[in-house]
Amino acid sequence: MNKLIPPFIILNFKNYPQSIGNKGLKLAKIANEVAKDTNTTIIVCPQTVDIRLIAESVDIPVFAQHVDFNEAGSFTGNNLLEAIIEAGAVGTLVNHSEHRLKLSDIERIIDRAKNNNFYTVVCSNNIKTSKAVAALEPDACAMEPPELIGSGISVTTKPDLVKRTIAEIMTVNPKVLPLVGAGVSHGEDVAEAIKLGAKGVLLASGFVKSKEPKKVLQEMAEALIK
Amino acid sequence: MNKLIPPFIILNFKNYPQSIGNKGLKLAKIANEVAKDTNTTIIVCPQTVDIRLIAESVDIPVFAQHVDFNEAGSFTGNNLLEAIIEAGAVGTLVNHSEHRLKLSDIERIIDRAKNNNFYTVVCSNNIKTSKAVAALEPDACAMEPPELIGSGISVTTKPDLVKRTIAEIMTVNPKVLPLVGAGVSHGEDVAEAIKLGAKGVLLASGFVKSKEPKKVLQEMAEALIK
Amino acid sequence: MNKLIPPFIILNFKNYPQSIGNKGLKLAKIANEVAKDTNTTIIVCPQTVDIRLIAESVDIPVFAQHVDFNEAGSFTGNNLLEAIIEAGAVGTLVNHSEHRLKLSDIERIIDRAKNNNFYTVVCSNNIKTSKAVAALEPDACAMEPPELIGSGISVTTKPDLVKRTIAEIMTVNPKVLPLVGAGVSHGEDVAEAIKLGAKGVLLASGFVKSKEPKKVLQEMAEALIK
Amino acid sequence: MNKLIPPFIILNFKNYPQSIGNKGLKLAKIANEVAKDTNTTIIVCPQTVDIRLIAESVDIPVFAQHVDFNEAGSFTGNNLLEAIIEAGAVGTLVNHSEHRLKLSDIERIIDRAKNNNFYTVVCSNNIKTSKAVAALEPDACAMEPPELIGSGISVTTKPDLVKRTIAEIMTVNPKVLPLVGAGVSHGEDVAEAIKLGAKGVLLASGFVKSKEPKKVLQEMAEALIK
Repeated sequence: MNKLIPPFIILNFKNYPQSIGNKGLKLAKIANEVAKDTNTTIIVCPQTVDIRLIAESVDIPVFAQHVDFNEAGSFTGNNLLEAIIEAGAVGTLVNHSEHRLKLSDIERIIDRAKNNNFYTVVCSNNIKTSKAVAALEPDACAMEPPELIGSGISVTTKPDLVKRTIAEIMTVNPKVLPLVGAGVSHGEDVAEAIKLGAKGVLLASGFVKSKEPKKVLQEMAEALIK
Repeated sequence: MNKLIPPFIILNFKNYPQSIGNKGLKLAKIANEVAKDTNTTIIVCPQTVDIRLIAESVDIPVFAQHVDFNEAGSFTGNNLLEAIIEAGAVGTLVNHSEHRLKLSDIERIIDRAKNNNFYTVVCSNNIKTSKAVAALEPDACAMEPPELIGSGISVTTKPDLVKRTIAEIMTVNPKVLPLVGAGVSHGEDVAEAIKLGAKGVLLASGFVKSKEPKKVLQEMAEALIK
Repeated sequence: MNKLIPPFIILNFKNYPQSIGNKGLKLAKIANEVAKDTNTTIIVCPQTVDIRLIAESVDIPVFAQHVDFNEAGSFTGNNLLEAIIEAGAVGTLVNHSEHRLKLSDIERIIDRAKNNNFYTVVCSNNIKTSKAVAALEPDACAMEPPELIGSGISVTTKPDLVKRTIAEIMTVNPKVLPLVGAGVSHGEDVAEAIKLGAKGVLLASGFVKSKEPKKVLQEMAEALIK
Repeated sequence: MNKLIPPFIILNFKNYPQSIGNKGLKLAKIANEVAKDTNTTIIVCPQTVDIRLIAESVDIPVFAQHVDFNEAGSFTGNNLLEAIIEAGAVGTLVNHSEHRLKLSDIERIIDRAKNNNFYTVVCSNNIKTSKAVAALEPDACAMEPPELIGSGISVTTKPDLVKRTIAEIMTVNPKVLPLVGAGVSHGEDVAEAIKLGAKGVLLASGFVKSKEPKKVLQEMAEALIK
């Protein structure tokens, strides 16, 4: 997935009412516009059912929020990687705080993703799980302290945690991009994350639930490359 | 969901390689054609990521293979009912043999579906679980003996099981449509199911993996209303 | 399990620090004493690891808090029914609010329990899930509104809910004993439950975390048979 | 847990009918005897319900097959660490192939175990998951190729896999003891594992289902320290 050039802003649309269907499409178009205007890499993660709608309408990368590890076959109700790819997604979140996975399944998902040239951003919750994720060789690891998710208090208010997490990821596997998330709501949070060594941020409510999503994303995008 | 008039044929596309994306769209169009030609009710259940593509292209009802019970909010990677509906689905399979759910979650899904005028076909695996499902008041209950799923040996080879299941469902809740599935591959299997009292059949490989899906579906549709 | 004569008081020891090991043994001995003094049926449900210790020391019935559905074989870390029985338990809670199970697994557990003459008390959370449980033919169904569990506000403050639940269980399967739980903390709660038609109560903190467990249990036992 | 001196033989009793209750006690006594005779470290992992019975009767270390991550409190049917400890266990298997856990839960279990001076042997299935486990800082990591578990074909038939796994664990965290398992059935399998650098072996059927458990264990113990 060499076309994804860090630093990134990854926008998780979650199951928020503000991001369903056409509302999500509008948000994705805003992200597309801001990415072009600022020449930054912004990734959107709509719900599975909205991936194709959005992937057909924007030029920025579209990620799934989750894919299952199984191969094609007799499985019902799973998110099959190959189907997600055909619909236009080029990567996925894995092991999000709201969708924790078994260690062995994370490894299988990463492995299958690699074989399909599909980008993986695996979420973690602290230093040790970030190191463990790095050992699994995903493309990126996004560390999010669970207690700050959706809180509006940025992960960057814990600079030591961020720095140590990044250092430990680098020690285990310097090819893994270190990202951070949780509570990221302002341009300054993004600037701070980059200053601490992160190669990008993962956020959801700070964009999706913002009254001025375009303005806030623009600030973040500018902070990303300042 | 009074627009769904039994008897039904429900086609589960599963995660089969033969049913992904445009291949699934072709299968759905075949189902659409057969439904029109035979004036029968045929329902297709594509993967979540393909729901919108197919719902926009056919007139027959499109179901999800699974929805999660949660309401809109801070959830990642779940199939939100409201998003599935906006994408064009009008119902869902619940508790498929390959996606078993907790009892309390099945009840919540049915409850939320009812409030959204969304059709639920809850799968069960024997007489007792069928009775339990009936008590939860879904629109339909599809009993599938797990050992016959994908076997090519039709559930109707167990006529006593089918008849007793239907009788027990009726005793608990006569409003629940009794369906059967597993191994249904031929028109005669459908005819036999209807004769035994089922209001429809649920099948997957018998259609999706058939070399002549149109021919086999046509036979089934004709058998459904004979 | 015809030796269990209703009405019952079932005491769930949970994972409370007050009920571990020797502390749990003391609580079980109190229950044993009260049962004898009042000539009532009181059942204790210690943690799995404490079942043998307690079953060897008291005459009252000892239940597990959970058993797994699997048969003996290559399974690791599961609660095997046969091992639980050899340790002295004569029954189990199933599908407790804090240990919800898949519908099909509940059915398998009940089936395996019946074949081993092992008593099953399956928990439910509302009227519909209680009906579903009754259809699965356990020995008893204990309805507990989740929002009242551990609240100190008794389920009997919802008399209509209790009466309707019992009536519906009876309709589906009159052989299933209807029990209620959640917030039961006083003798009067038990008296009220019995008056509403319940054949017993399920409680945890009201006994385990009480400062005077013997006194409170004595009151409850007397209320049970008044 | 500095009293556990490698190399080890860890005997997983699983849910085998041959290891329940008094049968498990006999097997544990055999292990106890062999450990004394050969002056080796042999650990037994009975079912949770049998931990106290066995821990009271033998001098060798007793491990649980699984503990849950939760702290003491309102949890039902879980294996609470503190209760397992009070019953006499000094360690636990974690994430066994037949009881896979979420990455974040493995980390929490290890963390809670450390705070309670409780030994953790975390299972893994390949090189990458072994590295990930090492990053979580358990006491030991037992790599078991799933396809060989219970097969009678020893993991040591894949010497390169064993050596590379050990090397990678050492790179991430040299304090983690590297163990191997799957198909270990003979003294020579143990000798080979030690020769390849493993600090011990994890086995189940090779001992529990053996017709001559004492003889086979004696051979293994001798091979361990040869």
